[in-house]
Amino acid sequence: YKTIQMHIISFFFLAPESSAGKRETKGRKTVKPQSTHKQSSKSCLCCGFKREQKNPPTHEDPELAAQEQRLDYHEDDQRLRREEFEENLREMGLEMEKEEGTKLPGVGFLKIHAPWDVLCREAEFMKLKMPTIKVYCLESYQKVNLFIQKVTAPLQPNVGENQTENEKPLSYPFSREKQHLFDLSDRNSFFDSKTRSSIVTMLYEWKLNRCSRMYVILVLSLQILYEQWASYSIFYKYQPIGLVRKYFGEKVGLYFAWLGVYTQMLIPAAIVGVIVFLYGCATVDDNIPSMEVCDERNNITMCPMCDRACSYWKLVTACGTARASHLFDNAATVFFAIFMALWATMFMEHWKRRQMRLNYIWDLTSFEDAESHPRAEYEFHVMKKSLKKEQSPKVVSVAKLFDYKYIFLLCSFVCSMQIFVTLAIVFGVVLYRVSIMTALHMSSTPTFRTNIRATVKTTAAIINLIIIIIMDEVYGAIARWLTIMEVPKTDKSFEERLIFKTFILKFANAFTPIVYLAFFRGRIIGRPGKYLYVMGSYRMEECAHAGCLMELCIQLCITMLGKQLIQNNLFEIGVPKLKKMLRQRKIDKKHQEELNKTLHRHEKDHFLGPFVGLNPEYMEMIIQFGMVTLFVASFPLAPLFALLNNVIEIRLDAKKFVTELRRPIAVRAKDIGIWYTLLRGISKVAVIVNAFVISFTSDFIPRLVYQHMYSADGTLHGFVNHTLSYFNVSHFQPGTEPMKPMHLGYKVEVCRYKDYRDPPWSATPYEFSREFWAILAARLAFVIVFQNVVMLMSDFVDWLIPDIPKDISIQIHKERNLVVELFMKEERGKKYRNTIGDPSPQPSYQYHAVSFLGTK
Amino acid sequence: YKTIQMHIISFFFLAPESSAGKRETKGRKTVKPQSTHKQSSKSCLCCGFKREQKNPPTHEDPELAAQEQRLDYHEDDQRLRREEFEENLREMGLEMEKEEGTKLPGVGFLKIHAPWDVLCREAEFMKLKMPTIKVYCLESYQKVNLFIQKVTAPLQPNVGENQTENEKPLSYPFSREKQHLFDLSDRNSFFDSKTRSSIVTMLYEWKLNRCSRMYVILVLSLQILYEQWASYSIFYKYQPIGLVRKYFGEKVGLYFAWLGVYTQMLIPAAIVGVIVFLYGCATVDDNIPSMEVCDERNNITMCPMCDRACSYWKLVTACGTARASHLFDNAATVFFAIFMALWATMFMEHWKRRQMRLNYIWDLTSFEDAESHPRAEYEFHVMKKSLKKEQSPKVVSVAKLFDYKYIFLLCSFVCSMQIFVTLAIVFGVVLYRVSIMTALHMSSTPTFRTNIRATVKTTAAIINLIIIIIMDEVYGAIARWLTIMEVPKTDKSFEERLIFKTFILKFANAFTPIVYLAFFRGRIIGRPGKYLYVMGSYRMEECAHAGCLMELCIQLCITMLGKQLIQNNLFEIGVPKLKKMLRQRKIDKKHQEELNKTLHRHEKDHFLGPFVGLNPEYMEMIIQFGMVTLFVASFPLAPLFALLNNVIEIRLDAKKFVTELRRPIAVRAKDIGIWYTLLRGISKVAVIVNAFVISFTSDFIPRLVYQHMYSADGTLHGFVNHTLSYFNVSHFQPGTEPMKPMHLGYKVEVCRYKDYRDPPWSATPYEFSREFWAILAARLAFVIVFQNVVMLMSDFVDWLIPDIPKDISIQIHKERNLVVELFMKEERGKKYRNTIGDPSPQPSYQYHAVSFLGTK
Repeated sequence: YKTIQMHIISFFFLAPESSAGKRETKGRKTVKPQSTHKQSSKSCLCCGFKREQKNPPTHEDPELAAQEQRLDYHEDDQRLRREEFEENLREMGLEMEKEEGTKLPGVGFLKIHAPWDVLCREAEFMKLKMPTIKVYCLESYQKVNLFIQKVTAPLQPNVGENQTENEKPLSYPFSREKQHLFDLSDRNSFFDSKTRSSIVTMLYEWKLNRCSRMYVILVLSLQILYEQWASYSIFYKYQPIGLVRKYFGEKVGLYFAWLGVYTQMLIPAAIVGVIVFLYGCATVDDNIPSMEVCDERNNITMCPMCDRACSYWKLVTACGTARASHLFDNAATVFFAIFMALWATMFMEHWKRRQMRLNYIWDLTSFEDAESHPRAEYEFHVMKKSLKKEQSPKVVSVAKLFDYKYIFLLCSFVCSMQIFVTLAIVFGVVLYRVSIMTALHMSSTPTFRTNIRATVKTTAAIINLIIIIIMDEVYGAIARWLTIMEVPKTDKSFEERLIFKTFILKFANAFTPIVYLAFFRGRIIGRPGKYLYVMGSYRMEECAHAGCLMELCIQLCITMLGKQLIQNNLFEIGVPKLKKMLRQRKIDKKHQEELNKTLHRHEKDHFLGPFVGLNPEYMEMIIQFGMVTLFVASFPLAPLFALLNNVIEIRLDAKKFVTELRRPIAVRAKDIGIWYTLLRGISKVAVIVNAFVISFTSDFIPRLVYQHMYSADGTLHGFVNHTLSYFNVSHFQPGTEPMKPMHLGYKVEVCRYKDYRDPPWSATPYEFSREFWAILAARLAFVIVFQNVVMLMSDFVDWLIPDIPKDISIQIHKERNLVVELFMKEERGKKYRNTIGDPSPQPSYQYHAVSFLGTK
Repeated sequence: YKTIQMHIISFFFLAPESSAGKRETKGRKTVKPQSTHKQSSKSCLCCGFKREQKNPPTHEDPELAAQEQRLDYHEDDQRLRREEFEENLREMGLEMEKEEGTKLPGVGFLKIHAPWDVLCREAEFMKLKMPTIKVYCLESYQKVNLFIQKVTAPLQPNVGENQTENEKPLSYPFSREKQHLFDLSDRNSFFDSKTRSSIVTMLYEWKLNRCSRMYVILVLSLQILYEQWASYSIFYKYQPIGLVRKYFGEKVGLYFAWLGVYTQMLIPAAIVGVIVFLYGCATVDDNIPSMEVCDERNNITMCPMCDRACSYWKLVTACGTARASHLFDNAATVFFAIFMALWATMFMEHWKRRQMRLNYIWDLTSFEDAESHPRAEYEFHVMKKSLKKEQSPKVVSVAKLFDYKYIFLLCSFVCSMQIFVTLAIVFGVVLYRVSIMTALHMSSTPTFRTNIRATVKTTAAIINLIIIIIMDEVYGAIARWLTIMEVPKTDKSFEERLIFKTFILKFANAFTPIVYLAFFRGRIIGRPGKYLYVMGSYRMEECAHAGCLMELCIQLCITMLGKQLIQNNLFEIGVPKLKKMLRQRKIDKKHQEELNKTLHRHEKDHFLGPFVGLNPEYMEMIIQFGMVTLFVASFPLAPLFALLNNVIEIRLDAKKFVTELRRPIAVRAKDIGIWYTLLRGISKVAVIVNAFVISFTSDFIPRLVYQHMYSADGTLHGFVNHTLSYFNVSHFQPGTEPMKPMHLGYKVEVCRYKDYRDPPWSATPYEFSREFWAILAARLAFVIVFQNVVMLMSDFVDWLIPDIPKDISIQIHKERNLVVELFMKEERGKKYRNTIGDPSPQPSYQYHAVSFLGTK
């Protein structure tokens, strides 16, 4: 026993009956969730600690591993620490039970039980709001609400909770002095399992986090959640958020509620997106510019797309692309971009209201986030610092300053390096495209050549995708490493900094290729006779005739679909399964089956994956939100893809939480924290990005300007001709003219290219023309107008929709009055008793409490 | 006695000694503040009610007057009401004393006294945080802080409070169960006068506001505030905000603290503004464009400024204006605009921090704004509605809907009407200028003509100013009327809506002329040969050669100076003095002197002006803030003017509060509410307005474009010539050519005008030239870049500066721990007592409270 090393300390959390009776019940439980809903109120917090093994323990967590290596415990020290730890827990009133004779080799369990007194004491200090005896009715004062409830009834999960929704017990911070207010008849269920686990966790974590690593196994056997939540067959139903919160705590509950709101909000966006797309499909035949491109009679000869190998080509061959690009570049796109900007604001507002409602239902309205304790690493760091200080007290302040500066610099440096790497990768992919294109042009047969563009585009997009996925993991690790280097003070600041860094890196990683495609591709190519060359001889890539919008679409489509498919299937389903298998492998094969039958619930949970936090889930969704809002002007189907993905994602995550992971310790949270800030940031950036996409990437503004300034009859007839400039082929730089000038069957003297430049015969040949500047001014004016109008509209929507739903604010007001009334009544009773017991001449007065506090 | 009508109900609030002794003390007081600082803790809340007079009572308040007319009380009803009211107060434990034999005819007083029990009870319900016995040290852990304190020592007001600043008593919500925590040795000073008055007010206001009009006279005799705050001689000192809050409550305290922070922040802005202005002065001689204008050798003939009467003129005559406009239009202006945008953000952040600090010092950190009671007018409205409903229950819902719609429509209609009126006035002033100019040109002698422009500009600006000031009052009344029509539910929403409407109207009123000058003046004039005419024959006004910036400056300067001078002197000093005189007039002259000697303090206060709220003060400052930030790019001296004004304003307001007004009832407030939102809004709008001023009103962008695109040698030489287009005088419309074509002594064939248009000899004469579009694109690009960069920088500054100052967050944390510790100790004591009294086998445990909650 003395040789047991507590790398992993486990807790078993029992309700205050004799544990003998309980052990019996637990023995009967199996791994598959059963209908133990009733018993789960006696839920258990339990975990294992490993006996020392010869090979050094493997740590998945680089942070703790690093620390442990640094600290380099001796065995005696270790035992002392454990004893001190147990002593501490005992001093705080917790009861413990050791379980060493488990069937798992190398693992022991320490069961911790918090008696009723301790629970009460801690609940009072935590100012936990608990339901009192008093129940009040929620006014469902609007008939509309009832109607909505009736309509959505089939969408509600079948958890048997909805019946009592019209009543709510009045909540009040628990206090031992006011025990008579609470219904304590059933002490076992008064504090539910999540509350109990968080109380016990709070009691040990401040000691534990300076000891060693631990995890919590919490028996989870929730048939109802399994059936009504973690099932693909009920994908169309609302989630039973109340139950989720009840078993996983507020933080997890908020994540799923947020995901639900997001998915729900995606439905209208997807519908409008599909309509916009269909509008594009329907009008493709009426589109004058693409008709003009496809018209054989407009015999327009275009300049070659590459040096030497390519030759002149007829504009009519770009007919397909021109028609396709109309699907994504039409008048409805502008409307959709504005719609989506407002949608993003509506989503934020809707979420704020939903959050407020949940806060009210979950009795968190007056909950304040307590400051968390300093992290063990931080304390170690400070200790090291103060040790140094004692040795050389004078240099410290300078050294400290230098140290902070150093870390900040390092951080900025690594971050910018990473972004530079991302840029380099994008540039590499561009080079790949350019070189492959040139090579293919050189060697291929003419029939093959028509498919070249599509092939290269698609392979490049897939390469981009693969790089994004690989770099995502790398960047995640780097962000973590940087944050550990910073040694933030509290867990909260650690998490925030980590999230922020990860977000910056992953966001840059995901969006750099797309930004390049949207804003730089085909814009820095120079002009015929004066092309821009990179890496010696490669000409920068040109866009197909109808702008780069098509390619942007392909890239977005592949990134979204691919990322979601691969990440969902591989990382979220595959990897955890693999890990679980590996974990079970460590046990001898022959024992396994035997074990499976006799193992206790908490011993089986030992094989489940650890809960690693919600950050990866949130991050994935935030990047998706970026895809949906940032470039929505160029890809109106994005919301639909996101919707389809999320419907699956919710159930997938639910399954993971119910069956694959150890039950997380319940964490109270009022909001989704820094994620909301990031969402706001994205939706702000989205406005300006969409403004630029519409005005610079699409041909919307040139068409508009042509119609109103240059068109003879106010239609788009002649628009294609207007966008093409003239080039005299005799002005080609020597060595760049096409090898086969007679490819089209006639001698070309003047070819056309897409740009607004003066013709060769003007006074200023090949200078930007007046049209160029006029259109540029129009584009810029559009950006200003779009940005400010949409921002104003967003602010207006923000202001229009109150943050707290009307009915909730009424209920909160009512609840406050009820609390006052309750205490008034109590006070009157007290006074009465006083005057009976002590007939001293205290000035007697009546108290009109109800009317006084204005319930009216 | 029975005929007394309670139009004004008065309260006298006494400390719980015998009132006889107090009356003595009060008799000795005079109107001028005396050194009664000590006694003021027994401050009095007192007021008068008038006997009925034959002539109907004059109401300054249209709202209450209207209501009273509507209700039309009978005398009996009135008496019943008063008796009911008194009965209610008595039921709530308040003690009353009537004082009818006053020396003021028609006025009686009702003195209200809250006994200790009542005070305690209410303090407990209001969860008032009161200082406990426990005192803890504030860590002034930084030597820098001490140094700053030493340096600013002479700037600190001399109120004898600074010594104890290193200690702060721990505060805790008052509770009668925990009386032992508080220092109750001196019951008279435990609750200070402001707390007591607000408790009493809270008790009666819910009854009173449905009775009749009332005001509170609170004896105010604060020698120390008079000396250390309301004096011009100490204008350079900080305000004693603590004392201000102590006597006027948190809301007034916050106003003065905000005004102080704003004034303080204006100092750096004013300094930088002056430097920018001086830079303009210093570089005026090196400025190439103005040198070129003034150079006699550049013999440039300009087209006439008006039809017929005016003739051609030499550009060199505009030399003075060109030089003057350089003072406000130079490279430093752009820098200053960016600086001021960041300054505005810094100001908001600084204020947030200051507010947080004050919240901490004033123990408001956990104070939540309780929802206020419905207003009497609202209840009356609802009552009327429900009466109607009873009569015709079916039409109500439609009527109600119609009613809300109707009021909203009315509101929008009136508001837009007002803005339309403002626009009409601006247009009227423009017409005045145009017509006067033409008339003067026609008739005046040549020597007189040179001063025409300046004269007309200045008179127009003054007319604008006078209209603004008059319309300000009109709009204030209209906004009030509209809000009354809306019948908002609570006082808070009433105030917010009123403020919002008033703000919209006054803001539009103040800024429409300026916006016209900045963005429209001289831009919609057409071109020679095709001028734009309004009202038949008036040509739209042109700008002087060097842009409209100069005129904008003059207008801003006159508006700021004039508005502040007139409003300060006339409305803030003059009108209250006049009102006071009128009020005293009502008393017979002969009695007056006699009365002055024998009157009690509260009777004298009856003659002071009522406290009308802080809204006019805030509004004035917000409009000023708009002037300082919105057009700062064109008038860098604005912050200096604002600073000079505010230094006086603070002391002026202080004087008004101390000597001119009845003491307001203390109102608790955590922040400045809607004003902060408005400030944020203004600072956001300021960014875009400044971007447009720089790029469109000033010549900054054309100069830049000329330097980089057209200049031969990269300097501004030739810039003036470049900005002037050519006009062939034979193209004048018949009847508009000058009457004296030979005015300059030679025949003019081609004249010049300021615009970028093609010359008469090009293929497209008088069309906008390529330069025009290029410069327009540059201007627009500048707006986009400026807006987004400045917004980003502002957000960055916002993010960089924590909302809660570091030391305050540490102190709050410390305080929280101390409270926990205190209760832990208490609990341990309790347990100990329990085990002695009741030796039942309760599981004993130790509690390591201090380390457990991580004070560490």
